[in-house]
Amino acid sequence: MTIRGLLINRYNLIIISLTCSVLLILILRFSKFSYAGLSVPNMLNVHLVPHTHDDVGWLKTVDQYFYGGRNDIQHAGVQYILDSVVGQLLQNPERRFIYVETAFFYRWWKNQPPSMQKAVRQLVDQGRLEFVNGGWCMSDEATTHYSAVIDQMTLGLRFLNDTFGPCGRPRVAWHIDPFGHAREHASMFAQMGYDGFFFGRLDYQDRTNRIRTLEQELLWRASESLEPPYADLFTGILPNGYNPPKGFCWDQSCDDAPIMDDPDLEDYNVDDVVQRFAAAANSQAMAYKTKHIIMTMGSDFQYENANLWYKNLDKLIRYVNTRQANGSQINVLYSTPSCYLQELHRANLTWTLKTDDFFPYADDAHNFWTGYFTSRPALKRYERVSNGRLQTCNQLEVLGGPSSRKGPFGAGDSETLREAMAVAQHHDAVSGTEKQHVANDYARRLANGWQHCQVVVSNSLAALSGSSAGRIYCDNLNVSACPLTEASKKVTDIHAHSCTHARPHRWHARTHKQKQIHNPIHKETKDRGYAVNELVFQAQAPPLGYSTYSVSVLQNGPPSASVKSGPPAAIQNKFVRATFDPATGLLDSLTNLETQQTIRLTQNFYWYNASDGKSSISDQASGAYIFRPNSSSPFIISCTAETESIQLQEVRQQFGPWVSQVIRLHSNSKALEMEWTVGPVPIADGLGKEVITRLDSSIASSGVFYTDSNGREVLRRKKDFRPTWDLRQTEPVAGNYYPINSRAYIKDDKDQLTVVTDRSQGGSSIHDGSLEIMLHRRLLHDDWRGVGEPLNEMSGVFPLGLVVRGRLLLSLTPPALAADAHRPLAQENVLQPLLSFTEGGPPPGSLLEFSGLQAALPPAVHLLTLSQWGQDSLLIRLEHQFQTKESKEHSVPFTVNLQVYTQYTHICTWEPLGTHIHTLFPSQSIINLFMVYLIGKDSVRRPTDNSYPMQGS
Amino acid sequence: MTIRGLLINRYNLIIISLTCSVLLILILRFSKFSYAGLSVPNMLNVHLVPHTHDDVGWLKTVDQYFYGGRNDIQHAGVQYILDSVVGQLLQNPERRFIYVETAFFYRWWKNQPPSMQKAVRQLVDQGRLEFVNGGWCMSDEATTHYSAVIDQMTLGLRFLNDTFGPCGRPRVAWHIDPFGHAREHASMFAQMGYDGFFFGRLDYQDRTNRIRTLEQELLWRASESLEPPYADLFTGILPNGYNPPKGFCWDQSCDDAPIMDDPDLEDYNVDDVVQRFAAAANSQAMAYKTKHIIMTMGSDFQYENANLWYKNLDKLIRYVNTRQANGSQINVLYSTPSCYLQELHRANLTWTLKTDDFFPYADDAHNFWTGYFTSRPALKRYERVSNGRLQTCNQLEVLGGPSSRKGPFGAGDSETLREAMAVAQHHDAVSGTEKQHVANDYARRLANGWQHCQVVVSNSLAALSGSSAGRIYCDNLNVSACPLTEASKKVTDIHAHSCTHARPHRWHARTHKQKQIHNPIHKETKDRGYAVNELVFQAQAPPLGYSTYSVSVLQNGPPSASVKSGPPAAIQNKFVRATFDPATGLLDSLTNLETQQTIRLTQNFYWYNASDGKSSISDQASGAYIFRPNSSSPFIISCTAETESIQLQEVRQQFGPWVSQVIRLHSNSKALEMEWTVGPVPIADGLGKEVITRLDSSIASSGVFYTDSNGREVLRRKKDFRPTWDLRQTEPVAGNYYPINSRAYIKDDKDQLTVVTDRSQGGSSIHDGSLEIMLHRRLLHDDWRGVGEPLNEMSGVFPLGLVVRGRLLLSLTPPALAADAHRPLAQENVLQPLLSFTEGGPPPGSLLEFSGLQAALPPAVHLLTLSQWGQDSLLIRLEHQFQTKESKEHSVPFTVNLQVYTQYTHICTWEPLGTHIHTLFPSQSIINLFMVYLIGKDSVRRPTDNSYPMQGS
Repeated sequence: MTIRGLLINRYNLIIISLTCSVLLILILRFSKFSYAGLSVPNMLNVHLVPHTHDDVGWLKTVDQYFYGGRNDIQHAGVQYILDSVVGQLLQNPERRFIYVETAFFYRWWKNQPPSMQKAVRQLVDQGRLEFVNGGWCMSDEATTHYSAVIDQMTLGLRFLNDTFGPCGRPRVAWHIDPFGHAREHASMFAQMGYDGFFFGRLDYQDRTNRIRTLEQELLWRASESLEPPYADLFTGILPNGYNPPKGFCWDQSCDDAPIMDDPDLEDYNVDDVVQRFAAAANSQAMAYKTKHIIMTMGSDFQYENANLWYKNLDKLIRYVNTRQANGSQINVLYSTPSCYLQELHRANLTWTLKTDDFFPYADDAHNFWTGYFTSRPALKRYERVSNGRLQTCNQLEVLGGPSSRKGPFGAGDSETLREAMAVAQHHDAVSGTEKQHVANDYARRLANGWQHCQVVVSNSLAALSGSSAGRIYCDNLNVSACPLTEASKKVTDIHAHSCTHARPHRWHARTHKQKQIHNPIHKETKDRGYAVNELVFQAQAPPLGYSTYSVSVLQNGPPSASVKSGPPAAIQNKFVRATFDPATGLLDSLTNLETQQTIRLTQNFYWYNASDGKSSISDQASGAYIFRPNSSSPFIISCTAETESIQLQEVRQQFGPWVSQVIRLHSNSKALEMEWTVGPVPIADGLGKEVITRLDSSIASSGVFYTDSNGREVLRRKKDFRPTWDLRQTEPVAGNYYPINSRAYIKDDKDQLTVVTDRSQGGSSIHDGSLEIMLHRRLLHDDWRGVGEPLNEMSGVFPLGLVVRGRLLLSLTPPALAADAHRPLAQENVLQPLLSFTEGGPPPGSLLEFSGLQAALPPAVHLLTLSQWGQDSLLIRLEHQFQTKESKEHSVPFTVNLQVYTQYTHICTWEPLGTHIHTLFPSQSIINLFMVYLIGKDSVRRPTDNSYPMQGS
Repeated sequence: MTIRGLLINRYNLIIISLTCSVLLILILRFSKFSYAGLSVPNMLNVHLVPHTHDDVGWLKTVDQYFYGGRNDIQHAGVQYILDSVVGQLLQNPERRFIYVETAFFYRWWKNQPPSMQKAVRQLVDQGRLEFVNGGWCMSDEATTHYSAVIDQMTLGLRFLNDTFGPCGRPRVAWHIDPFGHAREHASMFAQMGYDGFFFGRLDYQDRTNRIRTLEQELLWRASESLEPPYADLFTGILPNGYNPPKGFCWDQSCDDAPIMDDPDLEDYNVDDVVQRFAAAANSQAMAYKTKHIIMTMGSDFQYENANLWYKNLDKLIRYVNTRQANGSQINVLYSTPSCYLQELHRANLTWTLKTDDFFPYADDAHNFWTGYFTSRPALKRYERVSNGRLQTCNQLEVLGGPSSRKGPFGAGDSETLREAMAVAQHHDAVSGTEKQHVANDYARRLANGWQHCQVVVSNSLAALSGSSAGRIYCDNLNVSACPLTEASKKVTDIHAHSCTHARPHRWHARTHKQKQIHNPIHKETKDRGYAVNELVFQAQAPPLGYSTYSVSVLQNGPPSASVKSGPPAAIQNKFVRATFDPATGLLDSLTNLETQQTIRLTQNFYWYNASDGKSSISDQASGAYIFRPNSSSPFIISCTAETESIQLQEVRQQFGPWVSQVIRLHSNSKALEMEWTVGPVPIADGLGKEVITRLDSSIASSGVFYTDSNGREVLRRKKDFRPTWDLRQTEPVAGNYYPINSRAYIKDDKDQLTVVTDRSQGGSSIHDGSLEIMLHRRLLHDDWRGVGEPLNEMSGVFPLGLVVRGRLLLSLTPPALAADAHRPLAQENVLQPLLSFTEGGPPPGSLLEFSGLQAALPPAVHLLTLSQWGQDSLLIRLEHQFQTKESKEHSVPFTVNLQVYTQYTHICTWEPLGTHIHTLFPSQSIINLFMVYLIGKDSVRRPTDNSYPMQGS
């Protein structure tokens, strides 16, 4: 099968993931049975929502949380929670529970005997157990990429759909814990068909304001591109974070008094409890618009012994409602967020519209949760790399056919990496706010997933190329180690490429003698590579395919590159010119040679002195979550850089023993690459450091800058300003930080300077014309948000601080042309080509180049997903990757012709298109397509061998 | 009904409480069903015993423990434990559980719906839920009186029998936590028909020794009086206290790793767990004799979420037993103590015989749990007084007939006090090792119980006397306050007497002007009485009856007693003479005028400086449990006493501001009374104090002294010696302390000096001829055994240390005659007469005196219990109160003629005697008799009105 110009001719309701509109309608019809009638009109109805919040890793690993291991760190065992809750639900049909994290539920479910599975199915069918959110985890919103979020949601929702059908479908998105809320997340949730969204954390000033104006419930218009109401989402802010009101926590982890209702008892407290509850309910009702309020009766890892909760909630409901006979106007009921939402819907009110997002999050004046935008930069990068590897693995699994999973290299699978990636989206995973051993576990999972995928890739490449030669992936290339290429005289290098647009890659087509690199990592580590030479050449791979290069050593000494000490006047290619100040060695200006525009641009590295919590203003220290610099002026690391340059393309800058940078211009690239290396951050002075790089330009940005949301739409930011309330700024730096997932820019009428990042980072524009990005953090104090460790990462087994390396890509354009550059640049950064090596030359007769597409897709259309769905079906996701109005050329609807060149057309359908094979793509739209083999319809079966006809391109 | 000379003519199997031998046989037949076959011959069988240890009050009150209130103090909620365990037992028929404390179980049971009760009955019938011990609580062994222990056991066992029948009957006594073990407890358990006894705590040297000699399982011959095997009891010492082996605690309160059996898991630990378990089992097996070992899988308040335990135990059993296929010789099974015991029985071994007890208990060289023998002396006294009140209440409830419960004074009951007394027997109640607020709660319960009983008493006295005049009980006479007697000119005083031997009481027959008392309690408290005069006269009440006295004020000023400053040369009556040293004011000698024997005897007060835990030898401080004096020599409070004497009968000694004493000789008494008052113990010097009184005599005691066991048999103690092992003495004082429940003595060939106490206290004989008794403790440090508070008792709302008063009765006799004196003296002290007052004179025609017995019982026979059993039955317990060989006259079997004078003879039976109405009482025997009305057998029904013919005497 080859995908060649997907063509669709009707406008589709945009539904991401497997939960299609048909399912939605079914749900609305069937899930309301026992709820109706529990609320009482004209009374204050208090919806008690029993729930547990089960982090998919945080203080403990996801395995430890599931089993209840390492309870010395935190008492939490999800297996027991589900055991217990189900048992309690079965005891009383009025009780309800919601469950969120499918990563845990799935694991529990597969350990249950059929009798228990049957009982649980019944609970779900009756709405007593309701899934909310339902992704594999509750993803982080500040540091995730939309493609990984969609994947993790798909994984969870698919399990629920396959297992429970329509009744298992979550109708409410539930992000009660993430530390700020991204507009793109709301947009995705709206497009996935959720009826509403609830969360717990928002800026304290914002909350105060909303309580005053009764705007804790609102309508979020979450996309500028998608036509309303496609990205509109009802959004509710929960009253107590996600905790119960004070005094009513009846979990085993709480100490609140149970209801003691034996009247003979000294401690009899029914009257007191009822009175306190009425006070709490009435007080809460003052802050919301309707006669319905919601109370989250649960918290982190609660309900491990659900009896404690339910026994007391049963009594609470009984005793509070009994008072109605004496004129009480309060009615309490077991409920769920969707039941509550239904009541809000019935109230038929108009909600305030919100179009910006909920970043940054501060829980008090000096407590901005903007540190985690950057925390654990190496993990953030590894997660991003792994996302690309997963897409490659998925695609090759499809392209290589069934033998990909079981072939000459053994049995492989993509599930392991898919699940590892899904787990890594958790709001204490890629966010960097977990304990160190848990961060290690996430990385281990990704590495293990990749091992499973390597088998798939090897098998697939064997099927596609016809060569079963052993392949090496040189997983440690990030630390410049690859035993094969270090030792071999001849190597074959395959670039597997998951981008759907043919594009040359930044592989330098030249060979030079490698100079010793300054960073200590290269000097002091012992288990890493010993290569002294580096081969750099430009390679090109076709879209959705691979190409093969053979490399041989021709002579013992490689040709030497021209290395020159001191800064060059400039480096340049045919598109870009960058000049350097000879006095400082720093970047000086940037010119777009095509548009003939130049800006003054200098760049350097700085560090903020992390607050140690000993200030008189506030005892808040910087930590994994919180960014709180001691002063608003960062310290410069070095005013000058020692530099050397290599030909006209590369300048190497050393800013001292722990910061260096290589600035490159690839011959065919329009972007200036800045490869920074930071670390080990010194702490011998007892000061925690938060290291930034800052670009200072001549652009008249007027306090405005732009950052993306989860790698998709871009939002406008203004210094010391929030669109929906009158901000009292209390942290001039941290309070202006925003997440940068893939890009940020500043602009004026003439110039736009866009920076594309290789991972999520925090950043801001504190001064006009300036853009700063936080690269690395090394801290000496915990910030008292629970993780209980200072964020002080080490280099493996060495007692040195972690060294982190990354790339920023700079693009200077007129504002109108910027997106044309940064959209593909960023996409390319997410889906980097995969390299594999075999010893010796390619076997004779093997196919050296392959593409799954007959032609590249149009630039606006991106193949977001191509993966095996079932044994006889594929999932294909296409998206329009341009935001509305950002590109004259591309921000327009495209019609894609989905012409399928396969001999199996007669036994396939495209769902949800059916027989239609054209569709219109407006900006930022995403469509799911399932290609399903209609087994049994025809005697022609899907082939199961290597003859799977992929080679038609 | 009048009881007049109970006559019984056959020798009976001695069974205390309702569990008779018939039940025992039934149990042996029926309770073995599912257990058979689970153990494997020739393998090491590991009996896992899931259990919870639920203190009936300790850090929290019994109510708080039941409900799970005050979880901020300690996480514990028994209601949830039983909910959870029952749920888990129902899930898997192999699982077992034992439950101990009927006070909790009873409460839980009555809240269950019939369906749950039915399910639980089935679990009990099938042996999956097994009751062990089964008393209302797990009584303390060092500070309880046997009569109260029998009552509390009866209360619990009766509930189990009534509710579950034979299958509910505990077959094993289970005292896993009490801090040392009394021989009398073992004797009672043997007589109650228990098959065996298990406990957890014993002296660390003793344990080491027994591990070496494989004598942790033994046969305890628990009475010198009862013919073997009537007081023989198999006794097992549990391997880990009552905890699981290290690393295998799977309760929610523990942190041990759960079994993580997903082989894909990083944390997979099945092999490790199995290996560690085998090591633990093999190591334990080395210390026991058979191929069966027991592991207690539980601890304090565990199993609140039983799923955690059972889920992992299920896996443990499965994985360990699976290894048998590979040659493992270990077999693990769910079991109970009685199943384990059955296997030991099958092993057909001979166990070592033990005839002494397990006091004192030390868990290390400087850590003797001998402080609690005295801790909270006021509570200990109040408990003892309440026991007497309960017996009075029980008896009057019977004697007064049905109108006792509902009569002219309203509705009353004896259950409330019975339950309060039962709860007070707990090993953290009367022991004094609970937190202050819990001690207050025990006292409140006793007071409340007494309020309920007062109604019974008033109703009964109204029925018996024919007068319904209002009665006042002057409950605060202990602090000399009684508004009625302070204000009235004429008062009628009724002495209700529960002793069954007519005997004059120590009520002085004289009136004198009361001198101001020295202790500050009288000066500084405001809510207490203002009486300045004290009327002292001798009164006499008939056995099991009452007499009435009228007191009138004849003139405004009362006659003055002769008060003389300075010590008299002596005080004396016709039996006793005590001389005083004129120089010091201290006691000098004691003479028995009848036997013409004199000893030198001096007495004074001292304090040990409580260790503050800062010594270099050990960091153990004295606390509620532990007694650890800083030095072996106590500090004298004063070398001399300021004295004054009143006539020839009373000497008042003041030893400083906080210790005083009155030494009295009542005209008809053979005992010298020493009424001590101690407190507030000063702590301004920062030193905790443990106050003793010490008697130093000329008796050549040779390091030997004697103390009673739970108020019954007396054991020989020898300084720095233990009968069963070679003691290495490490605490010369604390290591020689023993509990004194009712009496202690020293003797030589000629003289025996016996001290009868009014409550449980600790004491010793550190020097020859010396006997010391600890009276009061005020400490400034916690002793790290869990209570978490220093034992620093205050006087109510006043910030002053508690003042405590008590009486010691001294008797000097030849050894052969000592028991004839101290047995009745001690019994009298337990069952003190109750006083009630009415204003004005007795109504004309009312009966002024009454006895339920036509004649006193023989001196050796004591009416231990007379109480209503059912609507139509009574419980009567008779005992032979003399130990074998201690009295020439009384330590012989008696035949009692049980002649019943009641018009209902033809519709009554005596159970278990049936038609026999004679029985033989050997020393220290107890017999239960149930007088049952055979309703329906005859048309004559039991009368239900006040005409109940009690007045026949």
